[in-house]
Amino acid sequence: MKVPAEVREALTALMAEYGMAIDENRLEDWVELFHEACDYKVVTRENVEQGLPNILMWCDNKNMLRDRVESYRHVNLYNPHYDRHILGPLRFIEKKGAAWCFDAAYSLFQTELEGESRLFSVGRYRVEALVEGDTARLKSVTVVADTGLIPSLLATPI
Amino acid sequence: MKVPAEVREALTALMAEYGMAIDENRLEDWVELFHEACDYKVVTRENVEQGLPNILMWCDNKNMLRDRVESYRHVNLYNPHYDRHILGPLRFIEKKGAAWCFDAAYSLFQTELEGESRLFSVGRYRVEALVEGDTARLKSVTVVADTGLIPSLLATPI
Amino acid sequence: MKVPAEVREALTALMAEYGMAIDENRLEDWVELFHEACDYKVVTRENVEQGLPNILMWCDNKNMLRDRVESYRHVNLYNPHYDRHILGPLRFIEKKGAAWCFDAAYSLFQTELEGESRLFSVGRYRVEALVEGDTARLKSVTVVADTGLIPSLLATPI
Repeated sequence: MKVPAEVREALTALMAEYGMAIDENRLEDWVELFHEACDYKVVTRENVEQGLPNILMWCDNKNMLRDRVESYRHVNLYNPHYDRHILGPLRFIEKKGAAWCFDAAYSLFQTELEGESRLFSVGRYRVEALVEGDTARLKSVTVVADTGLIPSLLATPI
Repeated sequence: MKVPAEVREALTALMAEYGMAIDENRLEDWVELFHEACDYKVVTRENVEQGLPNILMWCDNKNMLRDRVESYRHVNLYNPHYDRHILGPLRFIEKKGAAWCFDAAYSLFQTELEGESRLFSVGRYRVEALVEGDTARLKSVTVVADTGLIPSLLATPI
Repeated sequence: MKVPAEVREALTALMAEYGMAIDENRLEDWVELFHEACDYKVVTRENVEQGLPNILMWCDNKNMLRDRVESYRHVNLYNPHYDRHILGPLRFIEKKGAAWCFDAAYSLFQTELEGESRLFSVGRYRVEALVEGDTARLKSVTVVADTGLIPSLLATPI
């Protein structure tokens, strides 16, 4: 699929910042990457493939994302681990109206405060995003996690 | 090495689809990424560095890839795991005739149906590919696996 | 942040070669990626966030990098493991004078000679680099490792 170079760059930068904002515990910045009318979901691959409705996390507008982050800030007095996202290259799929649709594989590692790192989850982001001038915003992010053992009360977003 | 932007994009997209096609169990689509006269090999790094001829998998034309995928479809009644490839950036090396030569590091994770993910293999793709207009095709892929413990009867390609 | 396409490409290629040079044990090539007046540091994230001065490795000019690699060549008769870096996309932050500042997440795996691969470290590169014509050089690299259990006598660079 043909994608203008500046769109490709803006969306690659958007996803790089997506991972880095979570990893640096800048969750408020992460929320600001989303469009006001947005959708963020975490599902397991097994559920997607079996058509089951099991959704680990679902926020269907930006205020829900804000609430989620705010409650996280109040419940957790300190961050018990570091996250680290490694994203693969973006694969562009189609354009739906004004939105660019792409996916990208991710691996997510967590490091305990004692310093040991381990694999936490692998999977795929399915994304719809808008690019207006220099500004790119996420309209829809579905995290399809291969790993099925993720606690449903996810502390931080994936 | 100077590589035209549209070639770089086409080959990045090709490798993104390479990983995603395997990970989504679209192995027939994966075969279609190859040129009719192609070569696909899986070797271990130890063997490469010691000049040993041990090759874990070798298909030296596209029909062999087709056969391999077809027999996989008949032997396995279901897919006992999910694959997930995370690829690093492409490193362009040279142009050999019409073919662009590059490599890229990969990490490959597998997730059991019970939901646990683990590291399966890391290594490097050495690739020769052709770009004609909008179409990019793989002429030669050598998977050089750092991990040496891969069973020689690989169920799915790497 | 707006970054010219050729700068983006040159720096992506530089980082791809950074990882590949270490992984292929071409440490002398790795040193040549640096500017003569350079700075290379490995620190842990915990130390950065607590403002502690603990630095696992520090070379503040290119000759120190050369010495480090040379002594490594003499001390170690053989390489007891293979490294494999998987880098995420570059995230551009700012331009400081002539230097482009960006960061990138990394995962680093090690494979024992017996063939088993395991996660060694995850973290982030903070980089300042110069691009002059076709040549890109590293001015400053700080490896901020999430993983805190890295021995301070690092055998090879990260």
